[in-house]
Amino acid sequence: MKFGILGTGVVGQTIAEKLSQLGHMVMIGTRDKQAALAKSSKDNFGRPPVSEWLKNNSKVQLGTFTEAAEFGELLVIATNGFGTMPALEAAGKNNLSRKIIIDISNPLDFSKGMPPTLFISNTDSLAEQIQRTYPEAKVVKALNTMNAFVMTNPKLLPESTNVFLNGNDSEAKNEVKKILMSFGWSEQDIIDMGDISTARGTEQILPIWVRLWGTFQTPIFNFKIVIAKS
Amino acid sequence: MKFGILGTGVVGQTIAEKLSQLGHMVMIGTRDKQAALAKSSKDNFGRPPVSEWLKNNSKVQLGTFTEAAEFGELLVIATNGFGTMPALEAAGKNNLSRKIIIDISNPLDFSKGMPPTLFISNTDSLAEQIQRTYPEAKVVKALNTMNAFVMTNPKLLPESTNVFLNGNDSEAKNEVKKILMSFGWSEQDIIDMGDISTARGTEQILPIWVRLWGTFQTPIFNFKIVIAKS
Repeated sequence: MKFGILGTGVVGQTIAEKLSQLGHMVMIGTRDKQAALAKSSKDNFGRPPVSEWLKNNSKVQLGTFTEAAEFGELLVIATNGFGTMPALEAAGKNNLSRKIIIDISNPLDFSKGMPPTLFISNTDSLAEQIQRTYPEAKVVKALNTMNAFVMTNPKLLPESTNVFLNGNDSEAKNEVKKILMSFGWSEQDIIDMGDISTARGTEQILPIWVRLWGTFQTPIFNFKIVIAKS
Repeated sequence: MKFGILGTGVVGQTIAEKLSQLGHMVMIGTRDKQAALAKSSKDNFGRPPVSEWLKNNSKVQLGTFTEAAEFGELLVIATNGFGTMPALEAAGKNNLSRKIIIDISNPLDFSKGMPPTLFISNTDSLAEQIQRTYPEAKVVKALNTMNAFVMTNPKLLPESTNVFLNGNDSEAKNEVKKILMSFGWSEQDIIDMGDISTARGTEQILPIWVRLWGTFQTPIFNFKIVIAKS
């Protein structure tokens, strides 16, 4: 399958690598291709610059947001929260319609220092904004509640944990479920919470996630919901 | 030890029962004693009216918020979110100073229908409001991330789960830890997240909690944080 990934940060790179390893065709999109290729230093997470990363992932193509969105039959939003709506606007409405869009982005505002706050919350969510702006797209919020390395390798953790799906289109959620299972997620660990408004819950879990990262001094953890046996 | 519980709903009743069974002296406080005793029907959760409940828990005394706060060496806030600040005001500043106050309340607004929204969130929390208003009290947010029956009986669930502590006073958090352990919580399952501002995280977990309740059709579940082995 052909995937377009919007965002070349740690989430975009990790998802692109995984999809490419699984045999998919992947184009990773950025706002400014020349600027992205010109970077020569590691990012804040110690990831190599895009040019170096592309050498090690030679099957992945680099494109603009528009090119990646045009290329992908299925799109993944891996931008930082403030970049999400501009990236989709650059992608172009026609390249989004009727496509499944997996939204991993979070409306986190780091501009006032740590810990970040949410710039959309409570009565709305970033996922809902995307769905409202592009009503013909099939937005599925997923994977935003964990670190990128857990997203693509849930077996990093010593027990099974959960990944949440939020979206209006059941078929789209089933497609995303299959992709998650190809990443190593068990079907029973994928929780379909309901329509896209349930993304308010998964986005508002970020404040505790960020604080727990501080508590544990590692981002390699995840939420597991333990339910009473009926 | 002498406990004052503010709030006679399902959380207040369940905590009062447990503390009383553990041999503590408990007074449960309400805004209007006569009105509370006059109720004759079950509440929304199918709990018996207070008068009937008191017959079955004869060691627990009923008082006003003021009386319960005066009685307790340690206080528990088990009101609904909108009732928290008024209950503390009725309790009286002098009855709060230097006492440990376990805050279980959540700033949930059900007035616009289901699912509820948060009336304080993101850049503030109810726990912080309490601590700011009563700087001499030792506020510890705890147990607000789960159903009352799980709070007092974590073994209801088939695996260990987590309870979070948020508060500025380490000694107070240690006292609360001991109480939680007497409820059946293992020491390693109690996560001290840090100062009172970390309550933003535990309060903002409520939106996903409420949606998961809808998904699972049972409130008897809890969060477990699974961390990579180092």
